[in-house]
Amino acid sequence: MALPTQAADFPGWYQEVVKQAGLAEPSLARGTMVIKPYGFAIWERIQGAFDDRIKATGHENLYFPLLIPSKLLDREAEHVEGFAPEVAVVTHAGGEQLEEPLIIRPTSETIVWATYAKWVQSYRDLPLLYNQWCNVVRWEKRPRLFLRTTEFLWQEGHTAHETADEAIAEARRILLEVYRDAAESVLAMPVRVGRKSESQRFPGAIDTYAMEALMRDRKALQAGTSHYLGQNFSKAYGVKFLGRDGVEAFAEATSWGVSTRLVGGVIMTHGDDRGLRLPPLLAPIQVVIVPIYKSDHERTMVLDATTRIVGSLGRVRVKVDDREGFRPGYKYNEWELKGVPIRLELGPKDLAAGQVTVARRDNGDKAPVAEAGVAARVTELLDEIQRSLHEQAAAFRDAHTFTPKDYEEFTAVLKDPGGFAETGWCGDRACEDRVKADTKATIRYLPLDPAPPGGECLVCGKPAAETAAWAVAY
Amino acid sequence: MALPTQAADFPGWYQEVVKQAGLAEPSLARGTMVIKPYGFAIWERIQGAFDDRIKATGHENLYFPLLIPSKLLDREAEHVEGFAPEVAVVTHAGGEQLEEPLIIRPTSETIVWATYAKWVQSYRDLPLLYNQWCNVVRWEKRPRLFLRTTEFLWQEGHTAHETADEAIAEARRILLEVYRDAAESVLAMPVRVGRKSESQRFPGAIDTYAMEALMRDRKALQAGTSHYLGQNFSKAYGVKFLGRDGVEAFAEATSWGVSTRLVGGVIMTHGDDRGLRLPPLLAPIQVVIVPIYKSDHERTMVLDATTRIVGSLGRVRVKVDDREGFRPGYKYNEWELKGVPIRLELGPKDLAAGQVTVARRDNGDKAPVAEAGVAARVTELLDEIQRSLHEQAAAFRDAHTFTPKDYEEFTAVLKDPGGFAETGWCGDRACEDRVKADTKATIRYLPLDPAPPGGECLVCGKPAAETAAWAVAY
Repeated sequence: MALPTQAADFPGWYQEVVKQAGLAEPSLARGTMVIKPYGFAIWERIQGAFDDRIKATGHENLYFPLLIPSKLLDREAEHVEGFAPEVAVVTHAGGEQLEEPLIIRPTSETIVWATYAKWVQSYRDLPLLYNQWCNVVRWEKRPRLFLRTTEFLWQEGHTAHETADEAIAEARRILLEVYRDAAESVLAMPVRVGRKSESQRFPGAIDTYAMEALMRDRKALQAGTSHYLGQNFSKAYGVKFLGRDGVEAFAEATSWGVSTRLVGGVIMTHGDDRGLRLPPLLAPIQVVIVPIYKSDHERTMVLDATTRIVGSLGRVRVKVDDREGFRPGYKYNEWELKGVPIRLELGPKDLAAGQVTVARRDNGDKAPVAEAGVAARVTELLDEIQRSLHEQAAAFRDAHTFTPKDYEEFTAVLKDPGGFAETGWCGDRACEDRVKADTKATIRYLPLDPAPPGGECLVCGKPAAETAAWAVAY
Repeated sequence: MALPTQAADFPGWYQEVVKQAGLAEPSLARGTMVIKPYGFAIWERIQGAFDDRIKATGHENLYFPLLIPSKLLDREAEHVEGFAPEVAVVTHAGGEQLEEPLIIRPTSETIVWATYAKWVQSYRDLPLLYNQWCNVVRWEKRPRLFLRTTEFLWQEGHTAHETADEAIAEARRILLEVYRDAAESVLAMPVRVGRKSESQRFPGAIDTYAMEALMRDRKALQAGTSHYLGQNFSKAYGVKFLGRDGVEAFAEATSWGVSTRLVGGVIMTHGDDRGLRLPPLLAPIQVVIVPIYKSDHERTMVLDATTRIVGSLGRVRVKVDDREGFRPGYKYNEWELKGVPIRLELGPKDLAAGQVTVARRDNGDKAPVAEAGVAARVTELLDEIQRSLHEQAAAFRDAHTFTPKDYEEFTAVLKDPGGFAETGWCGDRACEDRVKADTKATIRYLPLDPAPPGGECLVCGKPAAETAAWAVAY
């Protein structure tokens, strides 16, 4: 079935790509999804990119339980207020009603910090630099595959430090060296990084840092967050240590996460009207070979050549589509929909000329390459496509980043074409609320280190406290 | 704190090793555990070994939801009977009581087959060869870290096939090419493979195959199972396909799993009175270097040499224990407890002689090696220790596999020293029940392909239908 165009119906386009490319489908319990093999293979590569960087920056993986005594949630006031409405509660198990209900983790700060209380006595026990990959459950009112599901997969890092400076440095290091680096260099997803305003902070955080990407419908996607939690959780759960100075102190905390939402981000950053376009580093299949033949004689010759080429491609992830009963054009469409970066077409005419037709998914270019040069060309092209997708997305994002002169222009660009609008902002919640009411846009990021930019708040005209980047967001 | 000896108190030894080596600890919700970084790093390597082989045999990973509508469980009669008493039930979510309760998956056959019903129409859609890594929850009456926890991590494979022969071949292939191979070659855990008797089958299976290992207390551990499910689930969930012959048929199923229980298996297969002994392929730290010095001058020289050696070890996983304020003997004990395969001791005397002292964890051997030869020796020793641990465990298992002559000898060897006892068995449940009542032993494995062995059932004297291997098990 044909996809809706992005221009005509972006949500419909997204839904059909997820379905037709075999990425995921809704499951039976409300808001849950089955991540299908092709979608999961993309997620495994995203996971690998983040996990490598999490480990390279000195963190270790561990695992905390899914189920948390419900009373544990109550200890941090903002946290419980933020999450209590979303939790799923286990009241019965083993055929009996539980004395105390258990909640399914919506995030694990509560159980982590209740446990860290046992692990930390002295400054010598710090820092704790831990991460876990797991599932979490948050009851979503308006679920959407990958972007907002009742259950999702993620990593959550939870670190404990001696000082606030160290914790803040950790939260920023994760944002820049882990999240931004993985997003840009593996997902080919250009991101802007910054601080969140108070209204957009994680419940219980002192500061939330985020990376924000722009989707093809010019809406922003929060692609990962890193929180400086101060002593909020260490005080709530009693995580004290004897300091170098012999004085007891509460540990300083961070937490940070990226999730399966990133799969949605990849789809909406790179996809076009023909379907997915996958960055080669994420693509489960990097090269698809479509052999073309009519007679048995042609078939033998073409498949022999195909085998030779597969052999020459070494560690490249190759798929040969030798299904019978499907026309080449049908196959081309299918692999384009699935976003395979390179297609090799190989028919009797190519063979006779000693060449292979090489087609790029990112820009549609198609050119013959001598058979002996195919492996080198594929390697080169995989790099080039990885870079090109990043460049295209960055150019799109930059072309949709505006600095409106007045409130009228501001609300106008947010409406059409949409994108990021950077303005002076006084720092008041009232102005955020007004913009949201007028445009649905929220502040996506503020500078990591606030500094008055000069000029005025574009909303109220008071002196600007900082420069805010606004967008309508997922 | 000193460990109890294995001989005096094996359960106490196990509990203290898990605790003191930093592998895991009980968490707040009953029967749950925190898998600590050192334990989780072992699990990650176990996962890798199985995942590689699961993929190499043509399977793809995917992900099904945690939460399953409770009515879905009721469709397969044996399955619901087996699992209903153990499930945890979510009755409230998002601040409201749910119309229909959800269960947390104890295993995923129900949701998988309800979903496969949508994926399978024709024989062309088969086989489905899928696997997922996830957490499951089963309400355990007597939890024990790694061996039996309310929540555990595992992989569960779920495959659908056209014919019974194909499904049976799949279940056996997983047992032999994936499970046995990973256990023997990476975990260094010798296993016996076979079929289960009816009383030990998975609820809903036609046949359950298992690999069984012998622990150091001479009790057996079921280390992985692979089930041929026939059409039980395809019929319960309506997974029909149009066959090659144009006739509709129900798909044939398998499922198979290994879990974090394997971490417990590794501890109890290889551990000794000093603590863990880790196979090098699983060890988060393969080599620990303990620099020894008194003066600042010695310190500089020894640490310089340490840096040289670390550099020469390339991709070996090395840890330098240069903590101040701990005696070398203290450090030796700690790394022995943690099962690090090789320890390098490096002091001024060694340096003067141009050598390093190399100590093996598996057999305690200690010998000087010229500094220039350390890297080569380490590589060689890692292989040797991997092999040696497997040999030691296989010899121990073989020395504790008995073929008793009569029922008296049978019950006697099961009691002391314990191990596997192989006997003729008539095939009757009554004989199993009697043996269990007399000895607590159960049948651990039967031959993959049953064939009357001649002779009599050691329990009742009737003609033997097969040879059964009995043991007291975890």
